[in-house]
Amino acid sequence: MKKVRIALTGYGNVGQAFARMLTRKKDYIRETFGAEPLITAICTKSRGAAVCPDGIDPERVTDDMFDRSADAMTVIRSGEYDVMAELTPINIMTGQPAADHIRTALLLGKHVITANKGPIAWHYRELRDLAVKQGVQFRYEATVMDGTPVYNLTQETLMGCRITEVSGIFNATTNFILTEMERGVSFEDAVEEGRRQGFVEADPSMDVDGWDAAAKLTALMNVLMDVRITPDQIDRTGIADITKDDIDEAAKAGKRIKLICRGRVEDGRPVGTVKPTLVDRDSLPAIMDATSSYVTIDTDLMGATTVIEEPFEPEIDHTAYGVLSDLLRVLKTCG
Amino acid sequence: MKKVRIALTGYGNVGQAFARMLTRKKDYIRETFGAEPLITAICTKSRGAAVCPDGIDPERVTDDMFDRSADAMTVIRSGEYDVMAELTPINIMTGQPAADHIRTALLLGKHVITANKGPIAWHYRELRDLAVKQGVQFRYEATVMDGTPVYNLTQETLMGCRITEVSGIFNATTNFILTEMERGVSFEDAVEEGRRQGFVEADPSMDVDGWDAAAKLTALMNVLMDVRITPDQIDRTGIADITKDDIDEAAKAGKRIKLICRGRVEDGRPVGTVKPTLVDRDSLPAIMDATSSYVTIDTDLMGATTVIEEPFEPEIDHTAYGVLSDLLRVLKTCG
Repeated sequence: MKKVRIALTGYGNVGQAFARMLTRKKDYIRETFGAEPLITAICTKSRGAAVCPDGIDPERVTDDMFDRSADAMTVIRSGEYDVMAELTPINIMTGQPAADHIRTALLLGKHVITANKGPIAWHYRELRDLAVKQGVQFRYEATVMDGTPVYNLTQETLMGCRITEVSGIFNATTNFILTEMERGVSFEDAVEEGRRQGFVEADPSMDVDGWDAAAKLTALMNVLMDVRITPDQIDRTGIADITKDDIDEAAKAGKRIKLICRGRVEDGRPVGTVKPTLVDRDSLPAIMDATSSYVTIDTDLMGATTVIEEPFEPEIDHTAYGVLSDLLRVLKTCG
Repeated sequence: MKKVRIALTGYGNVGQAFARMLTRKKDYIRETFGAEPLITAICTKSRGAAVCPDGIDPERVTDDMFDRSADAMTVIRSGEYDVMAELTPINIMTGQPAADHIRTALLLGKHVITANKGPIAWHYRELRDLAVKQGVQFRYEATVMDGTPVYNLTQETLMGCRITEVSGIFNATTNFILTEMERGVSFEDAVEEGRRQGFVEADPSMDVDGWDAAAKLTALMNVLMDVRITPDQIDRTGIADITKDDIDEAAKAGKRIKLICRGRVEDGRPVGTVKPTLVDRDSLPAIMDATSSYVTIDTDLMGATTVIEEPFEPEIDHTAYGVLSDLLRVLKTCG
């Protein structure tokens, strides 16, 4: 039985949900891949690093297990793991320190999986090439649309296709706010309700201003369309200036307002847009429920395929599944 | 450069489109997999078998290349190929002779890819187990929703999940007819228009009576939900009895009529239904364009994922892509 040592950088909601899911699927992993996954290190900014070569039980993580003088880089540089799961909070403007974490692990010949879209938005090409050069896996399914297969879908099941456009609704917070405003709820009350329900951040400006959507679009374009673009290059308009009148005008015209992302190549240059857009009432974006997402992937060989993520409780398990599906793919590919 | 010999059983629209697509992607296949795919045999019911170990150019297939005394089984039993592509016309009631073709090729240790849903609806479990025992690939992506990744999606990118339900609109002919009837076109005129546009069969009864949808649902249930069910066990109602009044009544109530397929397990037994169903105007099935299809795959770990196939011209290339994507997966998996 092959032991697979996993180092977790970041142990917030996603890290904890992933660890629980991993425990739940241990028998399946053993039977399917002949592997025993062990979490051998957990690093958090506040507590430092907990290391245990025999494996850490996620149900029994206590503060006294952590060495406050150690940090993520201490663990990453040790090389005493086979797979690093980079699950630190995103910095949408830089992709750091996640990109440095990933680069260091790849340079040491370790597989890397991440839920952090920052490095994919800002540093993808460099990290991808490094992983290829090192002969290791670099996977990031959970970075867009949680556990919904988007990258894996394209890379494993749309082989041979050239991706000519990606588009969709990628941000649940803004989609929820717009849906609530259509029901007559004010912008501020919609934000408050979303916070109360747990999926809107304390400071929702990254979502409201379209940065989260822009980062996701950038990530998709870099990976699926093999272009080089960064979030600051996206033509981005958020929903902060959408008024009740705008919503009502749209409804009178038989339309709805949705924050639509679109990426394509024009005159040889990648062009990405995030914009509030009028859509017909009986179009796919119009019927997307409050916290649903979708992506439409246009190809040269077989036209457009659309994948829809429907709301799931608990939402964090959807993201955790994305990380797990990447781990399973590492196990399947690297045997 | 490794030569990969492909025997085509069936050389109708799908076979020819696949052969053309293969030629178009030869460089990609060479660069990506270090393999040179060659069509070394073509078998058709009317012309017999054409065999050429150095490869047949699909642009130069002439009748005099065929030996009328040979048939598909002659070629399949010869074993002089690496992959058999089973592309014969479907027999929805038996899955033959495709199932016999596939079994024979698997017993000879050959990989098999197919666009024929008959064997997957009627003989899946046996053929799957035989392929596993023989250590070869058995793939069938093009059997449901043409080239849209459904099986590959589930098997490669939803690993670890248990599929608890499949549902969707799987038949383009009936969806088109229902859409046309909503526009005031008669059933008969809708059938005629569909024939004129090329996607409705001369005899549309297999579609209209729901047999095509039932066979697809059966195939999905057998593969994705690991159950044993056959098309005759589906609770099946087609659209032959849908009248203009039914359509109008639905519209008055703010609904549409769609032929919905659904498969799940109840009390330990697989239950599949194909039924005309009233759906809300702003639901996903309601907005499916005339020849669109979709499938919703419910999982235990991450809820429901929906995949939509949008109309593509030429439609036959969508199916051909499904066959190609299976070939690429064989090349990727078997190196």
